[in-house]
Amino acid sequence: MLTTMSPIRLDSAEQERLRESYRHLHRHPELSMQEHRTADYIGAELDSVGIPNFRCGGTGVVGVLRNGEGPTVAFRADTDGLPIQEETGLDYASAARGELPDGTEVPVMHGCGHDVHVACLLSAARVMVQRSSTWSGTLLLIFQPGEETAAGAQAMVDDGLWSKVPAPDLVLGQHVMPIPAGEIRWISGNAMALADSWKVTLRGRQAHGSQPHDAIDPIVLGAHMITRLQSVVAREIDARRAAVVTVGTFHAGLKENIIPDRAEFTLNIRTLDQQTRHQVLAAVRRTLMAEATASAAPEPEIEELYTFPLLVNDHTWTHSMVKAMKTEFGDQQVVESEPLMGSEDFGTLPQSAQAPGVFWYFGGHDAATLEQPAVPKNHSPHFAPAEQPTLETGARAALAALYRGFNGV
Amino acid sequence: MLTTMSPIRLDSAEQERLRESYRHLHRHPELSMQEHRTADYIGAELDSVGIPNFRCGGTGVVGVLRNGEGPTVAFRADTDGLPIQEETGLDYASAARGELPDGTEVPVMHGCGHDVHVACLLSAARVMVQRSSTWSGTLLLIFQPGEETAAGAQAMVDDGLWSKVPAPDLVLGQHVMPIPAGEIRWISGNAMALADSWKVTLRGRQAHGSQPHDAIDPIVLGAHMITRLQSVVAREIDARRAAVVTVGTFHAGLKENIIPDRAEFTLNIRTLDQQTRHQVLAAVRRTLMAEATASAAPEPEIEELYTFPLLVNDHTWTHSMVKAMKTEFGDQQVVESEPLMGSEDFGTLPQSAQAPGVFWYFGGHDAATLEQPAVPKNHSPHFAPAEQPTLETGARAALAALYRGFNGV
Amino acid sequence: MLTTMSPIRLDSAEQERLRESYRHLHRHPELSMQEHRTADYIGAELDSVGIPNFRCGGTGVVGVLRNGEGPTVAFRADTDGLPIQEETGLDYASAARGELPDGTEVPVMHGCGHDVHVACLLSAARVMVQRSSTWSGTLLLIFQPGEETAAGAQAMVDDGLWSKVPAPDLVLGQHVMPIPAGEIRWISGNAMALADSWKVTLRGRQAHGSQPHDAIDPIVLGAHMITRLQSVVAREIDARRAAVVTVGTFHAGLKENIIPDRAEFTLNIRTLDQQTRHQVLAAVRRTLMAEATASAAPEPEIEELYTFPLLVNDHTWTHSMVKAMKTEFGDQQVVESEPLMGSEDFGTLPQSAQAPGVFWYFGGHDAATLEQPAVPKNHSPHFAPAEQPTLETGARAALAALYRGFNGV
Amino acid sequence: MLTTMSPIRLDSAEQERLRESYRHLHRHPELSMQEHRTADYIGAELDSVGIPNFRCGGTGVVGVLRNGEGPTVAFRADTDGLPIQEETGLDYASAARGELPDGTEVPVMHGCGHDVHVACLLSAARVMVQRSSTWSGTLLLIFQPGEETAAGAQAMVDDGLWSKVPAPDLVLGQHVMPIPAGEIRWISGNAMALADSWKVTLRGRQAHGSQPHDAIDPIVLGAHMITRLQSVVAREIDARRAAVVTVGTFHAGLKENIIPDRAEFTLNIRTLDQQTRHQVLAAVRRTLMAEATASAAPEPEIEELYTFPLLVNDHTWTHSMVKAMKTEFGDQQVVESEPLMGSEDFGTLPQSAQAPGVFWYFGGHDAATLEQPAVPKNHSPHFAPAEQPTLETGARAALAALYRGFNGV
Repeated sequence: MLTTMSPIRLDSAEQERLRESYRHLHRHPELSMQEHRTADYIGAELDSVGIPNFRCGGTGVVGVLRNGEGPTVAFRADTDGLPIQEETGLDYASAARGELPDGTEVPVMHGCGHDVHVACLLSAARVMVQRSSTWSGTLLLIFQPGEETAAGAQAMVDDGLWSKVPAPDLVLGQHVMPIPAGEIRWISGNAMALADSWKVTLRGRQAHGSQPHDAIDPIVLGAHMITRLQSVVAREIDARRAAVVTVGTFHAGLKENIIPDRAEFTLNIRTLDQQTRHQVLAAVRRTLMAEATASAAPEPEIEELYTFPLLVNDHTWTHSMVKAMKTEFGDQQVVESEPLMGSEDFGTLPQSAQAPGVFWYFGGHDAATLEQPAVPKNHSPHFAPAEQPTLETGARAALAALYRGFNGV
Repeated sequence: MLTTMSPIRLDSAEQERLRESYRHLHRHPELSMQEHRTADYIGAELDSVGIPNFRCGGTGVVGVLRNGEGPTVAFRADTDGLPIQEETGLDYASAARGELPDGTEVPVMHGCGHDVHVACLLSAARVMVQRSSTWSGTLLLIFQPGEETAAGAQAMVDDGLWSKVPAPDLVLGQHVMPIPAGEIRWISGNAMALADSWKVTLRGRQAHGSQPHDAIDPIVLGAHMITRLQSVVAREIDARRAAVVTVGTFHAGLKENIIPDRAEFTLNIRTLDQQTRHQVLAAVRRTLMAEATASAAPEPEIEELYTFPLLVNDHTWTHSMVKAMKTEFGDQQVVESEPLMGSEDFGTLPQSAQAPGVFWYFGGHDAATLEQPAVPKNHSPHFAPAEQPTLETGARAALAALYRGFNGV
Repeated sequence: MLTTMSPIRLDSAEQERLRESYRHLHRHPELSMQEHRTADYIGAELDSVGIPNFRCGGTGVVGVLRNGEGPTVAFRADTDGLPIQEETGLDYASAARGELPDGTEVPVMHGCGHDVHVACLLSAARVMVQRSSTWSGTLLLIFQPGEETAAGAQAMVDDGLWSKVPAPDLVLGQHVMPIPAGEIRWISGNAMALADSWKVTLRGRQAHGSQPHDAIDPIVLGAHMITRLQSVVAREIDARRAAVVTVGTFHAGLKENIIPDRAEFTLNIRTLDQQTRHQVLAAVRRTLMAEATASAAPEPEIEELYTFPLLVNDHTWTHSMVKAMKTEFGDQQVVESEPLMGSEDFGTLPQSAQAPGVFWYFGGHDAATLEQPAVPKNHSPHFAPAEQPTLETGARAALAALYRGFNGV
Repeated sequence: MLTTMSPIRLDSAEQERLRESYRHLHRHPELSMQEHRTADYIGAELDSVGIPNFRCGGTGVVGVLRNGEGPTVAFRADTDGLPIQEETGLDYASAARGELPDGTEVPVMHGCGHDVHVACLLSAARVMVQRSSTWSGTLLLIFQPGEETAAGAQAMVDDGLWSKVPAPDLVLGQHVMPIPAGEIRWISGNAMALADSWKVTLRGRQAHGSQPHDAIDPIVLGAHMITRLQSVVAREIDARRAAVVTVGTFHAGLKENIIPDRAEFTLNIRTLDQQTRHQVLAAVRRTLMAEATASAAPEPEIEELYTFPLLVNDHTWTHSMVKAMKTEFGDQQVVESEPLMGSEDFGTLPQSAQAPGVFWYFGGHDAATLEQPAVPKNHSPHFAPAEQPTLETGARAALAALYRGFNGV
């Protein structure tokens, strides 16, 4: 069946619907775990083509399209926006605002392309309904909230996702990236990094700036910690393993002549395998504790903010999908990539379902844009995928993958 | 004359007036260079005893009491409060608010005892008027704004202070301290530290936390700078010279997984002599520049915020004042101190007038308070000098010094 | 032809001869570029089976076995020992001594298994002579000196190696490793690290230990350099690229109370690709220069000691050899390895000949030994490969590879 | 009596004898605690003028000159040379060699002027014998070995020095310095630094330079320790207290591509008061321990090599001696100095005898020499005091001090 389907063409009505859907979503982004109107919109869209659906994990939406005997294939799209002031100048740019968990009001933008993901999956869902005679099985449409905060996939699982739907035989997902629109990139095996974020609070002892001997200086302590942490990646980890320890924020002190009594910083730690992760986490913790001791300071407080799981693509299914994509888009357009140090919580879904998972990337920028020295990447206020062929590629990739999924590996 | 005067007693009316004046001032603190109502109050108080006075340096007030032939002796009291929320619980605690130069509204408190200084000098002025037959010469009463920001003394000088009054033969000043009330402390020669404050802005290059190789990480750079700065004091300065390099603030980054494009920190540098100061400043600057180079980062921006001058007490006059104080308070109460690493802009006045200056300290806390483990020092929200004998000591010390000044060294 | 040959059996006479040869070589190790008696021995062995041979690159030996039409296949064995005091307790342990280039007399040991390499290649040469009817082409036997110092391969090339022999179509080599005897490990593509070694001399200014302000302290400078270098690997290199910066030696000072005027340290830098290498070398150099500036010290002297080239295995030929090895030893015994951070100058030979090269590893330890917590690895004074099946494996692997080489990819 | 004595003139015979004695001593230096021939020479010289003497503390010599009723005044000269190759080019330069405790043979030189000290004290002893009618009391001549290693004064005390002679009422000593010959420098109170020397051995874990993750790198650990130690002086000690932490030696590693299993370094710590000393020692120890923990390394071994005591000059007696010196040499030639960060074990003698002590400095260089940019200071291979007026000044200063001592404060 697959061969007769490819290449998959979207008719002009569907193309228009996909574009409208994307623009609507782009105009109305919502912050992580607050995607209420987005969920309403998705629910209504699914209703409109007769796909039963329900809420899960708060603002998550699950559509279940039963279409006879056959495998159960899940496809996930993430739905949340980012606290970024959009500066794309697009007609359909966002003017939305939201409120962070700490109460701060912020602008909101679909700065990571999740609007593309949702629009493409809705489009694919419509096509799968339309062409229901060409496949059989059960399609699970998982619209997941809160990817940016690593909260959403787990929230859906914790809310009993897998007890509410048939067990999936395969879980799929995709992400738009600053690569040429029309291109597909794939990785087999460990594909995206484990990410652990910590908040570290150092306690010192305040004193006047002229009296350091009366103080325990948390800024000097923090500087020694950050300096010392460099040795973890440089000396404790096999050079052939990937590891990153980034201190993304450091804040201490109010006045140049007062030594403050505390400092706060945040760490973001990335690895591509669990063993390296455990080594790095242990070494970072050991370093922080020892440096505090070296300063005669109290033990620092370490708050674990979140963990992104390792995203592992199933070898067999990945190669199967690569074949499907090559059939769909041509060999030149389907390119192997090395693992990415970026992170995703997609992996939580296949892992918790004990099913194979495959996650790939599709291009969002036209060639001219990418030749510019500073193309706006994901999370930039200028991030603006070219509508076409980005949207069509996303929908077609989803469909090609679903057909392959229903036909078996 | 001096001997017949000592000990100087304030009559009960003057004691009451002094206390009232102090409480009034304490209740109504104002921020540096904004001491408008304080200046009005001082002007009115001087008017009330017939001392001609004028504004100088914005919110500074100068009273000139001419009383026949003889030396011209200047006495300075500083008038500004601090952006601190008073927590003393006193009946006359401040509820005042003010606005910082950057527009932030803040609470204001006389947290450094400048209210004591003003009240005592006003009291001494009244006594000098009352007892005008016991001395002759010209008394300059200098109520200086903006000591906390090192701005006020220079502002008065820049406003032509010394062209508007007779040239002083001696400039005096005093400060209340967390030592036993009733006690006087003195230092001959270099007495209080030179202080230089810098704001340093590091420029890096932003990147995602997982891509440090695309970034120039300003937090790691800052950590290396602060770590490296420790060697300046530890290795480049003669161990017998005092030097402090404090990083009082460090701020960088908004999100744990983004490497920011800049970091800002402030430095406070203290020394007790100009040669050491120049060595430290040059070594700090050299270190900051070289560390930026080591990171392949742009040259950091260094903004010089302010400089407190060295406070040097004239040897001859200091010893003369010590004798006067011992006569007034008894030998046990007049104690030599080693130089202080704290700073004062008092020194600007004698230096610009090319006159000898003497600055001393008087106690503000009763013995019981001082035995407590954490007595609230100057700049604490709990700083609350015991009213007596602090106020009387301050007034009597001023008077003893003035009599000695008019009698000659 | 290949299939009829495998598995290749050494007859008992050859097995005995191989063992004798190995023990002789083990007993008489020589230092790098001083392998005179080793070269004599190799020459005599080749003579004894009628293989014409000549010296090249000082103590290198090249045998040329012409056997009709066909490809030219080169096989390299390295010949030098190490300045290590052997502590194996073997009957045939070395008691040899040698003299380092700086004149120091040292013990010498075949602590890296080059004796195994030479013995196995001599054995393979004998078998190839014996079975000359089973193959045709030209066999180049390259006995290379000075591998440990990265000097020997280049010395042979500089001595005109490739102008003295037919141009090779393929260059082969192998190394014994602390993996189970009988096992073969292979890597396709970038296989062993680029290694650059530098000697760094820091100039400071001497002073008494009590007078650091008169000194430029090269020990503190060196400590800052080494501390700062950690950031190069940790922050400047893509986490997915391998890089190591090791400071292997640091020497400074004679007396605890004298700040010395210089310090010396050596660096060893390893990478798996040229781009990363250039990034690391540039960042290390930049760091060293900037840190010297931060100390107001003269520019450090950097002496480049040597560079090991990248060892790149030809993809096509590697996979061909893997098939040959699997046929010879069974699939289970032929295992893919990830790239090694260790270095080899083997790569100089195929690269200079513009020919494909393949280099693999064979096991030298029996399973029991390898289960011990601290198995003596290469360069240990206790390094002692199990004679069997190590020697036979090495000879058979060489033969299997040669047959495949002469039969074509 | 004193007034009639000053200025003290040495007759030409005594001047010649002093010069001869100095040249003899200079030619024959001996290492610390090995001053056997020096002791023989001193004993013979004392015998020659009839001063009873005995050995004490191994190579120490004590002369006891009883001359009627009166105070007991001790005068100490130190006797040891240094392991330096003399490069003065003097006629009477040393060609001596000695053996360090570890068996190393080294050249020996009187590179610190102890030969001057001994010659001057022997000269003063002769004059005191000659002029015995001008004073009365008991003169103790203490020729102390092993000053350079802080061993000699304690060795004499441990050998029962104070039980073998009358208890001194005063202990005197002096040192030649690179200041103008003829000049005297003095310090009242804390005069020379406490010095503590430690040897620190770091234990790591060896690995190949390409495998830092298998190692615990003692060079990186040492670098972090030295870097971290800078904060002790810079941040933990009151800026007004003197403290120095010098790492004088650091040795680790044999080969650039091997991470060694240990590193050794030595520390020299100087302070001018016991409280600061204890703070610094505790902070250094805490830092070393914590940094080892940060590296997951074993606790470092700290060996305490020696401690020089604080040299404290008695206030009353110092001022008395200053008067005597001014009478002898003129006010201009007697100059107050600030405390020195150099160390001496002289202090052990008055402290153990519970007697006041005074130690001063006298010039050894002519003005022309001192104007040179790099005048050879003590411990330089070029250190060569001008014979005159250095020797005469040393003898006269000793005599002036002794007369004052016998006459009372």
